[in-house]
Formats: sequence, C-alpha cells, structure tokens
Amino acid sequence: MNPLAIPEIVIRRLPLYLRTLNLLVDDGQTVTSSQELGDRLGISSTQIRKDLSYFGEFGKQGTGYDIRYLRDQLRQILQVDRHWNLVLIGAGDLGRAVLRYSGFEEGGFSIVAVLDKDERKIGRQIGKLKVLAIARLPEVIKEYGTQIAIIAVPASDAQEVANALVRAGVKAILTYAPITLSLPANVCVEYIDPVIGLQSMAYSLSPGHA
Amino acid sequence: MNPLAIPEIVIRRLPLYLRTLNLLVDDGQTVTSSQELGDRLGISSTQIRKDLSYFGEFGKQGTGYDIRYLRDQLRQILQVDRHWNLVLIGAGDLGRAVLRYSGFEEGGFSIVAVLDKDERKIGRQIGKLKVLAIARLPEVIKEYGTQIAIIAVPASDAQEVANALVRAGVKAILTYAPITLSLPANVCVEYIDPVIGLQSMAYSLSPGHA
Repeated sequence: MNPLAIPEIVIRRLPLYLRTLNLLVDDGQTVTSSQELGDRLGISSTQIRKDLSYFGEFGKQGTGYDIRYLRDQLRQILQVDRHWNLVLIGAGDLGRAVLRYSGFEEGGFSIVAVLDKDERKIGRQIGKLKVLAIARLPEVIKEYGTQIAIIAVPASDAQEVANALVRAGVKAILTYAPITLSLPANVCVEYIDPVIGLQSMAYSLSPGHA
Repeated sequence: MNPLAIPEIVIRRLPLYLRTLNLLVDDGQTVTSSQELGDRLGISSTQIRKDLSYFGEFGKQGTGYDIRYLRDQLRQILQVDRHWNLVLIGAGDLGRAVLRYSGFEEGGFSIVAVLDKDERKIGRQIGKLKVLAIARLPEVIKEYGTQIAIIAVPASDAQEVANALVRAGVKAILTYAPITLSLPANVCVEYIDPVIGLQSMAYSLSPGHA
C-alpha cells in the first residue's frame, strides 16, 4: 500500500498503541483487543481497528490481537525496530534530566552526543558522555549519521540552535523550549509541552465533568 | 449541552487548538480558518470544525474564526481562564527545569510549592520557591486547595509519590517518570514521554515517507 495515503494523525497514534502494548507485555499479558487498548487510551475501539487496518490484518474477529506480534509489526512500521542515533543540545538541568531518561533505548533511540555552548559545561562527563562544544555539531552529525536532535536549551537560544541543526543536516527536532521554531518545510518538529496535558486534565476536574 | 457527551479525544485536541491560536495572536493575526489550523496541526479541517461544533458556533462560513474570540471561548471551555495551583514533587535536575518552564502561567497554571524527600535539597531556594519536605504535602495541598501535581522524581520513587499525592487529595497528575502509575479510577494522569514524538518523526524520516 502507498504509505503516503496514511493520515499523519494515524501515524501519531501508533506510538501510543506501541507504548500500551509494551506495558501489557510487562504485565505478562499475551492477547489484547481494540476494546482494551481503547479503554486504556481513551480512544474508541472502532478508531483503533480503523487505524491498524491501514497496515494490514493484525487480529481475527473474536480472538483479539497477539500482543507481541502486533508490537513487532508496529515497531517495524514506525521503523524503530532499528536504533536511531540522537544528538542532544543543552547540558543544563533539563539536558541532564533528558540524558537520564530511561525510555529512549526501549523506544528505539540512543543519545550518542551532548553539546553545549557554555564553556563551563564543555568537557564535563554526564553518564557515558562528555559534553562537546556546539561548534563540533557538523562533525558529530556526520560521524554518527544522525538525523534527529533534541533541543534542551533556554527559549532564547532555541531558534539559533535549530538553525545550526538544520545547517548540519538534521531532519527531525524534538524540542523542550517553549517557543515555536521557524524551520524549513522538510524538517519535522515535535514539541514537549506540559501545558497540553495539564489543560486536558483541568477540563476533567471542572465541575460537571469529573 | 451535556458535557459528558464530548469524547475525550476531542477534549485532548482543544489544548492544541488553543496553543496554535496563541501563536497566531503572537504573530499579529486576527482571523483564522479550520484549514489553517489544520495545516499547522496535521489535523483535517473537517475534524476541527466537527470538534469545535460540540461547543457552539464559533465561525461563519467563508469568514473564518475571530482568533481572540475563539481563544477566549476555548480557555473558558477548558477552565483555564482562571489559574490552577500546582504542586511539584522533585527538586532535582528535572524539577528545576520544570520550575523554569515559562509556559505555565500563560496556560493557566501556577506552581505554588516544590517538595522533595532529599534532606540536602530541602530548604534550598529555587526561583521564588523554597524546597519543602515531602512530609508537608498534606498541609500544602490543603493550604493551596491544589488538585493537580507534577511528578519529577526518578522512576523508582514515582509510584510512592503518586500514592502520597492521592492520599493528600490530588485528583490529577502530570508525570515525567517513565513508568506507568497505578492510580484510582477517579484520578487523571498524563505522561510526558519524549519517545512518542520521536517515534512519529522516525516514521516520517524512513525511506518512502519523507
């Protein structure tokens, strides 16, 4: 099938399904249903069956989905059955917290370098990595064949860092900075914004919706 | 209309619309369309019109939406036209980064207290707040009438912290820890998981989908 025909909103739900399947495996479960996935995610079972049908037939009517099989298929579809090298820009409080985040490897990602512009941070060891000067970005990107970067710098520096990443050939950026980046159309961006989740919950807490 | 009839997935998209409207206001724009919002968010314009129609008539055919009016309406619907007090648990690298995040106030939230169990952190000043002992949680929650908490502690401590939050009366938790929390059905939870965004982008980067 033509992958270009799959709506972006469907692609964006697949990691949520994958995450839920991983949790079910951790719980020792082997079979699930669109109903169970839907209940866990607040998405209708019809929507889940429709989303998965873009990629083939994963379950049989009445018997549900084999969790490991569906998980492996989703990992393949999302191309996270191999590892992607990431570079991290920013070795401050947030950068250090990102480096300690334990979910990257399981998700298909490895942070291979951390860079900063602050002379006081360059050369410091954080876990397995030594902080490199931001000037070395082009060489690092080339060495590791990296297409994805994480921005963990203050908002005031984020656009400048993004420009440098684009010049170095990065094609996808995950940013924690609370500003909207201006980027070429061929560069993807994802924002980590805690306010989005808080606002959904505020609605649920309001009188009449609890 | 009965708010219980609005699907959760619709509610979860409203903060994305609100965020985009805020950005358009910052750009000096006054009118927008479901098409423009959709292009910015990767959601179909039909979906956006359908979502907004749950809450009333916000735009006229052909003239689009008045951005400020729609923004104010969404803020009212999401109940973030008032400020919600948050408590933050964890004063490590991540907690300090969360405290410096500048998007909370505009989003309708104020962090009123930060608590930690680490004796070495208790009493330290971070911005306007002094780190309090975790034992003071019930008293802090009561004093500020707080229903929402942010967890920024290591994965190994997150469930214990969540239990203490629930006992103190917290009804909604945003967590950065990469584990799934076990919580009573009447407590909402949102996970900040950078892997979800990275996996969507990995798909786009794969040969044939770029």
